[in-house]
Amino acid sequence: MSMQVVSDPWETQSIVSSMRMNGWIVGCVPTMGALHEGHASLIEQARNECNFVVATIFVNPTQFGPNEDFTKYPRTLEADLEVCRKAGADLVFTPTAEVMYPQSAQTIVRVNQMSSVLEGAHRPGHFDGVTTVVAKLLNITQPHNAYFGQKDFQQQLIIRRMVSDLNMPVQIITCPIVREADGLAMSSRNRYLSASDRKTAAEISAALRLAETLSRDSTLAPQEIAAEMSAHLTRQPGIELQYAVVCNADTLEPLQHRGTDAVALIAVRVGTTRLIDNCRLSLC
Amino acid sequence: MSMQVVSDPWETQSIVSSMRMNGWIVGCVPTMGALHEGHASLIEQARNECNFVVATIFVNPTQFGPNEDFTKYPRTLEADLEVCRKAGADLVFTPTAEVMYPQSAQTIVRVNQMSSVLEGAHRPGHFDGVTTVVAKLLNITQPHNAYFGQKDFQQQLIIRRMVSDLNMPVQIITCPIVREADGLAMSSRNRYLSASDRKTAAEISAALRLAETLSRDSTLAPQEIAAEMSAHLTRQPGIELQYAVVCNADTLEPLQHRGTDAVALIAVRVGTTRLIDNCRLSLC
Repeated sequence: MSMQVVSDPWETQSIVSSMRMNGWIVGCVPTMGALHEGHASLIEQARNECNFVVATIFVNPTQFGPNEDFTKYPRTLEADLEVCRKAGADLVFTPTAEVMYPQSAQTIVRVNQMSSVLEGAHRPGHFDGVTTVVAKLLNITQPHNAYFGQKDFQQQLIIRRMVSDLNMPVQIITCPIVREADGLAMSSRNRYLSASDRKTAAEISAALRLAETLSRDSTLAPQEIAAEMSAHLTRQPGIELQYAVVCNADTLEPLQHRGTDAVALIAVRVGTTRLIDNCRLSLC
Repeated sequence: MSMQVVSDPWETQSIVSSMRMNGWIVGCVPTMGALHEGHASLIEQARNECNFVVATIFVNPTQFGPNEDFTKYPRTLEADLEVCRKAGADLVFTPTAEVMYPQSAQTIVRVNQMSSVLEGAHRPGHFDGVTTVVAKLLNITQPHNAYFGQKDFQQQLIIRRMVSDLNMPVQIITCPIVREADGLAMSSRNRYLSASDRKTAAEISAALRLAETLSRDSTLAPQEIAAEMSAHLTRQPGIELQYAVVCNADTLEPLQHRGTDAVALIAVRVGTTRLIDNCRLSLC
């Protein structure tokens, strides 16, 4: 069966409905295109776990702030379709903004508390855009499983919250971060980096490895580990630190004591490019 | 097959999923209980159009304001189940507030513009509660069709907007208002009315009949018709008028000229009881 490319939401809904009626397990991988190996790994995992794999490609305008990179966000549809094909997608949903957001649209889905911290504090309204478009994409593609990268840790947590709070009949699966050889987390925005930015950016994952080492080999408290990450990043010329924190991995509240599932989260600016990364910590 | 009564969302979701997989057409009638003939007519219509009919009974706390009648709202579960049985429901979903809104819940669904006028202006936050719970109920009961009464005209319009905006795979069906012999629209809140309130309340539908007559037999502009309704209601001792308006039936904007689908909408207080009613007008 060759891969279908469909831009119409109703056609997509109808194709997936009939696959479900035939007993197929449907997996969905929502993306904004500019696909890299991280995305490919999501599609491959869906391919392994489902019978019918839908990828979506939509650069969602409502999750970009007025001063963010919506207009320059990379759009590489032909290459993206090739990535989808190779990774094993059966259908790629490629809607237009006009169809996703007609003039008459008035509805938002909001996850209140968790959307206002960290990325939400630095990007006001961002997560309202994310939750609204993900709700739409899940309703259109009606998957049993939906796959998100751990790279956007807060995003996958907020989507899990939304799905649980709204009783959406889908299982959210979070897949490991895929990294470059020097540790930089793969991101569509990495292509904005100059050669020297690119070298600087490797210090982000170095700071996370430092946090991992301190978690394992020291008895430092979570906030002391966060301070060590911050110090490491602040020392690097060319990095503007936005946050480097250690949080409860379920609630994103700053973690005061060892003994709870933890996550180290970093956001920086390198040159004009904003980058995020994270890793889970064992703080037992 | 005897009627099932299920309070668990996951069990309900799983029962309905397997009915759908067997090719059954599922209809859902969301209610807050205190069922009357209006609700019965919704269930009967679902029975006529679907193979598997789910009614839901849940007095949703989040759609009541702090000074509204949540605690005294009538709860008549045994009688309600009898109404459901007679009208032909296959399953009644009766969740608790604790299961619908666990402590960890943070998500709301909001239809922005249309939720802030008329009922939304008089009951701040009301429609956020309605859209959030209806999104949850539709995700739990996964119906092909969902049935709402025209009595809550703004509600059914907002739910249609939400379903369309979020691409929810369900068809919203609006059913006619069922009235008492004297014209009073059936409502669970009618049981709050004293005998003399009850007589006064009949003037609400009388005002709507006046609007219908003026639409048909005069060339009055929409706002002149609204003024006649207001004048009629203001003349009645015991009625406190909240609004009597003629609006575009798709957008709820006040209608300036004949020639568009119109609706006359009334909200009043009679004694301590707030009542609403409406009728479509032919203003061609």
